[in-house]
Amino acid sequence: MDPYPKPLRDLIFQLKRLPGVGEKTATRLALFILADREDFAGELAGALTAVRDAIRLCSVCYNLADMPKCSICQDPSRDHSMICVVEEPSDVLALESAHAYKGLYHVLHGLISPMNGVGPQDIRLPELMERLSKTQVSEVIVATNPSVEGEGTFHYIAKLIEERNYPVRVSRIASGIPMGAEVKYMDQVTLASALRYRRNVKDR
Amino acid sequence: MDPYPKPLRDLIFQLKRLPGVGEKTATRLALFILADREDFAGELAGALTAVRDAIRLCSVCYNLADMPKCSICQDPSRDHSMICVVEEPSDVLALESAHAYKGLYHVLHGLISPMNGVGPQDIRLPELMERLSKTQVSEVIVATNPSVEGEGTFHYIAKLIEERNYPVRVSRIASGIPMGAEVKYMDQVTLASALRYRRNVKDR
Repeated sequence: MDPYPKPLRDLIFQLKRLPGVGEKTATRLALFILADREDFAGELAGALTAVRDAIRLCSVCYNLADMPKCSICQDPSRDHSMICVVEEPSDVLALESAHAYKGLYHVLHGLISPMNGVGPQDIRLPELMERLSKTQVSEVIVATNPSVEGEGTFHYIAKLIEERNYPVRVSRIASGIPMGAEVKYMDQVTLASALRYRRNVKDR
Repeated sequence: MDPYPKPLRDLIFQLKRLPGVGEKTATRLALFILADREDFAGELAGALTAVRDAIRLCSVCYNLADMPKCSICQDPSRDHSMICVVEEPSDVLALESAHAYKGLYHVLHGLISPMNGVGPQDIRLPELMERLSKTQVSEVIVATNPSVEGEGTFHYIAKLIEERNYPVRVSRIASGIPMGAEVKYMDQVTLASALRYRRNVKDR
């Protein structure tokens, strides 16, 4: 017999849907939520409902937003002639936290992946091309992951832009040895890429 | 500037209150909840609200319940003359999953801990003594953890029952080397305890 009452069992079931959360963790979290003296359960429920009801995708760049346009696209101080193309909203967060980019973004919500049946029409690529046809853009930086799908999507975007003769510079974020890492521990593909895309000292 | 809209930031803030969840995990969980195509956010919010509104403590044993009495206390097939005293509701779950006990429980919701300013009146110990004064109980099994607080609480309960001359057998769950563990890796305290409380082969 189940010693836990049904509402608690239901909450454990829902928490188990979270990534990396199994039966034991879900039980621990549910009991923690229940034991909280303040109204944690109510506040978390409220935050979830607000996210569900208020969050939409920016009509320009498809980043997460709570207004028709996201805060970045609305910001007049940013460089609206540059678009950084990323896979997911969390990539925007990571790049923003580097404080090294002042242009706009375009969130694809996926990468082209023939293996998984994801084609160019299944991600926000048509929307990127339409955006490029309508607005003055000087550079598109493709910041997809240096993976098979990320590289493939980069080449596809570069080809599309070239075919349409848009006067847009297309670039790829650098890949190589990350700061703080050691050469001796790097994988072969990263080392090969880091050698291939070496900089001339003069370019600095 | 924060590239995440406020409702999402609020959800991340709430998720960070969970044990073992930091900024990165909370962000990952929030984006996962948001990306779910079904209404995960709504269902999780509903489960949280239901838990908050429906879960109470059993009026008899203080286990979690969604009725005035928990399912164990309501079950006529269980042995109502035995009470197993535990620290937390999750201890009830663990013991129930062993399918080795058919009596009732008493959840203390804490242990006596002078270091942390928790006295006998701060846990459900008065309620246990009142229960023993009102109902026919043949045995109280104290199943608190084999820690300083758990042992202290056990001795306190045993003394209280003895002082009041209740005709109740008080017992302590065995502590020793757990199944599957190896003697050579056990800590000294466990080994000392396992030696001290060794069984005679005849008792089996």
